[in-house]
Amino acid sequence: MTDEELLAAALGTPPEQPTGEVAPRRRAGGRAAHERSTLPPQRPWKQPRMPYRPVEVVSADELESIHQASLRVLAEIGMDFLDEGARELLKAAGADIRPDSNRVRFDPAMVEERITTAPSEFILHGPNPDHDIHVGGDWTAFGTVGSPPNVSDLDRGRRVGNREDYQNLVRLFQMLNTIHFFAGYAVEPIDLHPSVRHLYAIYDVVTLADKPFHAYSLGRGRNLDALEMARIARGVDEATLLREPSIFTVINSSSPLRLDTPMLHGILEYSARNQVICMTPFTLAGAMAPVTIAGAVVEQNAEALAGITLTQVVRPGAPVIYGGFTSNVDMQSGAPAFGTPEYMRSAMLGGQLARRYKVPYRSSNVSAANAVDAQAAYESVFSLWGAIMGGTNFLMHGSGWMEGGLHAGFEKAILDAELLGMVEAFLDGVTVDDDSLAIEAMREVGPGGHFFGAAHTQARYRTAFHRPMLSDWRNFEAWQEAGSPEAPAKANRLWKALLAAYEPPPLDPARHEELDAFLARRVEEGGVPTDY
Amino acid sequence: MTDEELLAAALGTPPEQPTGEVAPRRRAGGRAAHERSTLPPQRPWKQPRMPYRPVEVVSADELESIHQASLRVLAEIGMDFLDEGARELLKAAGADIRPDSNRVRFDPAMVEERITTAPSEFILHGPNPDHDIHVGGDWTAFGTVGSPPNVSDLDRGRRVGNREDYQNLVRLFQMLNTIHFFAGYAVEPIDLHPSVRHLYAIYDVVTLADKPFHAYSLGRGRNLDALEMARIARGVDEATLLREPSIFTVINSSSPLRLDTPMLHGILEYSARNQVICMTPFTLAGAMAPVTIAGAVVEQNAEALAGITLTQVVRPGAPVIYGGFTSNVDMQSGAPAFGTPEYMRSAMLGGQLARRYKVPYRSSNVSAANAVDAQAAYESVFSLWGAIMGGTNFLMHGSGWMEGGLHAGFEKAILDAELLGMVEAFLDGVTVDDDSLAIEAMREVGPGGHFFGAAHTQARYRTAFHRPMLSDWRNFEAWQEAGSPEAPAKANRLWKALLAAYEPPPLDPARHEELDAFLARRVEEGGVPTDY
Repeated sequence: MTDEELLAAALGTPPEQPTGEVAPRRRAGGRAAHERSTLPPQRPWKQPRMPYRPVEVVSADELESIHQASLRVLAEIGMDFLDEGARELLKAAGADIRPDSNRVRFDPAMVEERITTAPSEFILHGPNPDHDIHVGGDWTAFGTVGSPPNVSDLDRGRRVGNREDYQNLVRLFQMLNTIHFFAGYAVEPIDLHPSVRHLYAIYDVVTLADKPFHAYSLGRGRNLDALEMARIARGVDEATLLREPSIFTVINSSSPLRLDTPMLHGILEYSARNQVICMTPFTLAGAMAPVTIAGAVVEQNAEALAGITLTQVVRPGAPVIYGGFTSNVDMQSGAPAFGTPEYMRSAMLGGQLARRYKVPYRSSNVSAANAVDAQAAYESVFSLWGAIMGGTNFLMHGSGWMEGGLHAGFEKAILDAELLGMVEAFLDGVTVDDDSLAIEAMREVGPGGHFFGAAHTQARYRTAFHRPMLSDWRNFEAWQEAGSPEAPAKANRLWKALLAAYEPPPLDPARHEELDAFLARRVEEGGVPTDY
Repeated sequence: MTDEELLAAALGTPPEQPTGEVAPRRRAGGRAAHERSTLPPQRPWKQPRMPYRPVEVVSADELESIHQASLRVLAEIGMDFLDEGARELLKAAGADIRPDSNRVRFDPAMVEERITTAPSEFILHGPNPDHDIHVGGDWTAFGTVGSPPNVSDLDRGRRVGNREDYQNLVRLFQMLNTIHFFAGYAVEPIDLHPSVRHLYAIYDVVTLADKPFHAYSLGRGRNLDALEMARIARGVDEATLLREPSIFTVINSSSPLRLDTPMLHGILEYSARNQVICMTPFTLAGAMAPVTIAGAVVEQNAEALAGITLTQVVRPGAPVIYGGFTSNVDMQSGAPAFGTPEYMRSAMLGGQLARRYKVPYRSSNVSAANAVDAQAAYESVFSLWGAIMGGTNFLMHGSGWMEGGLHAGFEKAILDAELLGMVEAFLDGVTVDDDSLAIEAMREVGPGGHFFGAAHTQARYRTAFHRPMLSDWRNFEAWQEAGSPEAPAKANRLWKALLAAYEPPPLDPARHEELDAFLARRVEEGGVPTDY
């Protein structure tokens, strides 16, 4: 719309004084500009920062009690480390480990001292340096869904994941500006044999996209393959790679109080190479953790501290993220629940602990819903509320997570991109200066007037407000005439439009060739044996 | 379930270590207890308190700039007061009013001094003293939708409101424990003639329900009728009524910078009688207010301060609530938008201002959605995020608001009751003590065990977590077998079950008779002439 068209349109609906708080009637023909385009409006790619003070759900004294309780758990109960190499390192660093036992007991002073070397902020490099992300401080970054075995869309329903769906999700997330990193396979490409799956999946993520990415810690061979592909995609030498974190891996403890072999190998190999560990206990209160929020978070914190300690024993200064993933189960059925009030408080409490330890904090956008309905939306926004107001630096599963992680949804990916766009706009803060205070505009308009045509409005209306991609703001009659569409149908159109417009990001031909050659060679070699 | 059944059920799904962050598989037969009952689980009626520090979206200096800008607007531009009585009172109190002009210009010192007598906390009394609510301080209260002309449900679609629908909504909100007050007519009963509509509508709210309620400021006759019915319903004498706020009314300014006759009469009559004014400018940024958040809030604040000043001129100490209702329009179409990132920040900024003035703060749960879909849910939760983290004491439109206020939805009422229940649980805070820290439970279970059967879990599982009324946590297969139900269908069942179980609250027979007689007499008299 030109200014004149806008003004004419605006003047068609003078904002007569409302009766009560009913909104002024919307124009029937009020088609937003983006509805005439096939591509949804998006904010430009930008990494948001947290301008507000995070919410504290417990007092400083209570936080200290949780910290001390976690240290007691690690000292008195201890934690099973199912890898001899990890145990030997910890023993040399002062941990109490008895012969022929997996149990590691930590001296509180050792934990408190060791974790101080973890950096509070670092950069995670992507193949495209414009998409490098800051992790920590007041920075926030949003990642994709990771690890669901199934995928779903409105046309084909729910099905087991394959490479085609995986690639389409990679393309979609590359197109979505609110997505800053790939947080694992957006869906598991089950049709790729496990011995070579990581090779194809990472090849796809570095050739179809250019944002920082995750690698699964599934044994030394895979870990090193992923790192080498990150090096080639970035076009850097090995010394640079060891200096600049270029990959991250999520380390889940097997709660309660256990770290398995492949997870420990991930810490040993990636921390030694200065790559990013996202240390995330998966503590479902009432199942793998105590039924109380405080107790579940004590367990989460003990496990996180143990993992963070190991990263710093392996390499002081190795980048590590404190991951909070405490939720609860439905005690009537045993079903896991997400986006609950317990989840919100745990997410905020985890943030308080991470800030106490001065390490970046990870949380997630999660939902247990099976359909892209109101429940999917409210569980996700409550998760985001907990995560964002909890001071999250690194948001996993930001877009596309459904059914407690059992499927990735194409329509949910669009819904979540809308939510993340709204969160980014919320994080813009409020500008207060002479221009924005607008006293002269109010003087110009005066009592009883309206601001559509005011110079102050005309100069700012294009960028003043967040423009949604999914929300339908048409009046009821126009909406009904259009067939009463609901959010999933529009989301379905949007992801298809984005995929249709997708083009791969530029990739230096030499790097592309080297990636092709690496993939061919490693596939030829049979990838990684799957019998570990 | 008995403890033994719970344990047996739990042991049927040992929480094997998860792979990645996929939730453990849910049991197919996981029926929650509440699915066997027709009535949804609800928390008991309880007024929540805010245990967290509200979010501040601007600095103290920026807040002062907004305050000063508002005072400049009131001093230099002024505001139109369309009632001579109000103008005379203000003139006597020191305002600058020129002959033959509606324009009132306020001396900043006068505003700053007058507002100091407004109470920071008071009680709004309902017909049932158990349902009296605290307004202000760290208290929060949730109200119903108010004022939509239309109503909607899945069975009959959207239609103009009538008394039957109005009564059913009153019954439903009486049954919902998360609803603490009636915030206006939940739908306008259009079939009642305007001359007697207020008589029947208030009669219904005090005979079908017993929670505190709102009266519309639509002229002296209606205002006094409403107050008399509140007096009878409470069973108190007039002196008590004048001592104890028993009714509240929303005063909307006609932004920009105008207060109309019936609104001013509302302030004059109700403030003089110590009843509650909820002073709420309706400032849509880009339409009735500047396009910048800061500017729109300056306008909101100027209008709110002017109204609050008048209440205190009328009667120092009269209870008044600062209402924030700044949202934005879609600048492409002129459509009003709700639950936006602009709405969130404005809601939080309004809270900061209200706390600066030490008066209770009102915000709302709003959505522009036409259907009870994902959009309805996310706009509502984003509204609640802004309201709750903004320190709202008094939440209007908490349940049932759809389509920018143009219709009340039965299913949306249930959806919102779920959201409010989750918010209440979030506001429970986190208990930190030896019991909740659960070190002994972790010692008992040990690494690799699970907590389903632990004594610590068994003693607490019934009340440990919020129990949802709407969320469907069944696994995908069980959910699909049930016909893949989405949230609105379940909400439809729930409001019907609640209405079926509805019984009117006890009402003293003498009061009931007195209300009947009052209604009969005033209807006989023709109610209130509608030609003002």
